[in-house]
Amino acid sequence: MNAEKIDGTYIFDESLSSYGNFFKAGKILVDITTAYQKILIMDTSDAGRIMFLDNDFNVSTIMESFYHEPMAHIPLAMVNQKENILIIGGGDFGVASHVLKHKDVRHLVMCEIDEQVVQVCRRYFPDWAGKAEGDPRFSLVIGDGIEFVKKPGNKAKFDAVIIDSTDPFSSARGLIAESFYADVKASMKPDGVLIQIGADTVIYKKLWLEMIPNIRKHFPFFYPLLVPIPFYVTGAWGLVIAGSEESSIDPARVTGEYINSIGNVKTITPDMVKGWFSLPPYFKEYISGVV
Amino acid sequence: MNAEKIDGTYIFDESLSSYGNFFKAGKILVDITTAYQKILIMDTSDAGRIMFLDNDFNVSTIMESFYHEPMAHIPLAMVNQKENILIIGGGDFGVASHVLKHKDVRHLVMCEIDEQVVQVCRRYFPDWAGKAEGDPRFSLVIGDGIEFVKKPGNKAKFDAVIIDSTDPFSSARGLIAESFYADVKASMKPDGVLIQIGADTVIYKKLWLEMIPNIRKHFPFFYPLLVPIPFYVTGAWGLVIAGSEESSIDPARVTGEYINSIGNVKTITPDMVKGWFSLPPYFKEYISGVV
Repeated sequence: MNAEKIDGTYIFDESLSSYGNFFKAGKILVDITTAYQKILIMDTSDAGRIMFLDNDFNVSTIMESFYHEPMAHIPLAMVNQKENILIIGGGDFGVASHVLKHKDVRHLVMCEIDEQVVQVCRRYFPDWAGKAEGDPRFSLVIGDGIEFVKKPGNKAKFDAVIIDSTDPFSSARGLIAESFYADVKASMKPDGVLIQIGADTVIYKKLWLEMIPNIRKHFPFFYPLLVPIPFYVTGAWGLVIAGSEESSIDPARVTGEYINSIGNVKTITPDMVKGWFSLPPYFKEYISGVV
Repeated sequence: MNAEKIDGTYIFDESLSSYGNFFKAGKILVDITTAYQKILIMDTSDAGRIMFLDNDFNVSTIMESFYHEPMAHIPLAMVNQKENILIIGGGDFGVASHVLKHKDVRHLVMCEIDEQVVQVCRRYFPDWAGKAEGDPRFSLVIGDGIEFVKKPGNKAKFDAVIIDSTDPFSSARGLIAESFYADVKASMKPDGVLIQIGADTVIYKKLWLEMIPNIRKHFPFFYPLLVPIPFYVTGAWGLVIAGSEESSIDPARVTGEYINSIGNVKTITPDMVKGWFSLPPYFKEYISGVV
């Protein structure tokens, strides 16, 4: 069952053979297939304006902060400088709009592979695109992030790399390859910090067994963060944060003062972040062979 | 769309008009309508054995600990004695099986309204029923919890009351009525603790505005706990814990020693509990008018 429509109104977000989400489209705004993926944007009565990429739920206006805020504000609490920040993917401009709330970010580059994602998001999620593209610190590169981090001009450059891709267990597998992590590391300053979308910890948990060994070959300090993300299948989702310096990756760096300094943060408190870093026994046991 | 089957194999868990979960039934084990509700139990290939009550996802073998463990172990950390514990609902025996892991629980009563739930769960979730009914400290009452807490013999009796019902925003509205909370309070010792399933904080958040004022009239100390529960719609779910003594309701009572003393707890750490007690700004603001 693949983004099937039933009587023309229901769109499925298939996760696996026996479980998934469904959404009833009020109005389909975009339904195109690009060189990279299928893009579907719809309005719904209760779940916001949603973008699906390759039939997977990607983002919605009513839940964006649950995903974008941790992706932006947790790594930026853990860097020593904010001179150069890189987003790989992120074509909806959502993470970018949150990164740019940090007044001390000097330069933000967003490297998105699919120009058509950028174009439709400018039109249908204008708030995020406007905040990013209206900011002189922001620049957009249309290209493959895997190639971008290899460029000689990008060596030892970034303070933080934020990998905001489609699901790494489906369409974005190249972004959990060991060779990619080697290149990401080379593109970062020695005290740089990486954050990336992971998977859920119930249905897709096998992803972690593939992702963690590849990360740990290049980043000795890595932590799954079990951040619940509404509408992502099961909601019991995870991100991963990694770096080469132990002192950087510390949940205590997300203080109340830090959160307040960003302004209007909706989904994060210091104690929540400490909780996300604390792995429940079932998950600790599950990944024990690869950490 | 109400528990519709598409080509005979897909069963929906409808949440609201534009969003919900779907599950593909491998084998339907129970499909009956009782005096109280429709009961559907199915096996799935990846999401475990699932029970739906009135077409709402109720419990699955692969996620039960995410819900049952907090419902059992958080209130039992906050009581001063464990002489008499009451479960209202809980007919799958799941919460009961976790409560009885506490060796210092003296008596556990489970008051379930629907005897047919109990019967099918004995058969199809035999592990939970076996642990409960094989324990001499356990007793089952078939009856309405709303009436049970009014009984003269149950005044000032319970150290903890655990309300494990179907969704209070649909079929179990009577369990968030002010009069019910008055009776629950009267059935509890002065230092007793109540825990109850709430709602999610995105799609069903209006439930909180109805529930909290009714609780606070009788329990001056109440805290939503934002516990992510896989498969419950959006996953960004919440429980509520309440009591009459401020000192009781303290996340710091869930220590590592406490968790270890229970044995084989899968989904809880002390830092996770502190995180669940810490309300994110969006939710704090949402309920600010009623707290």
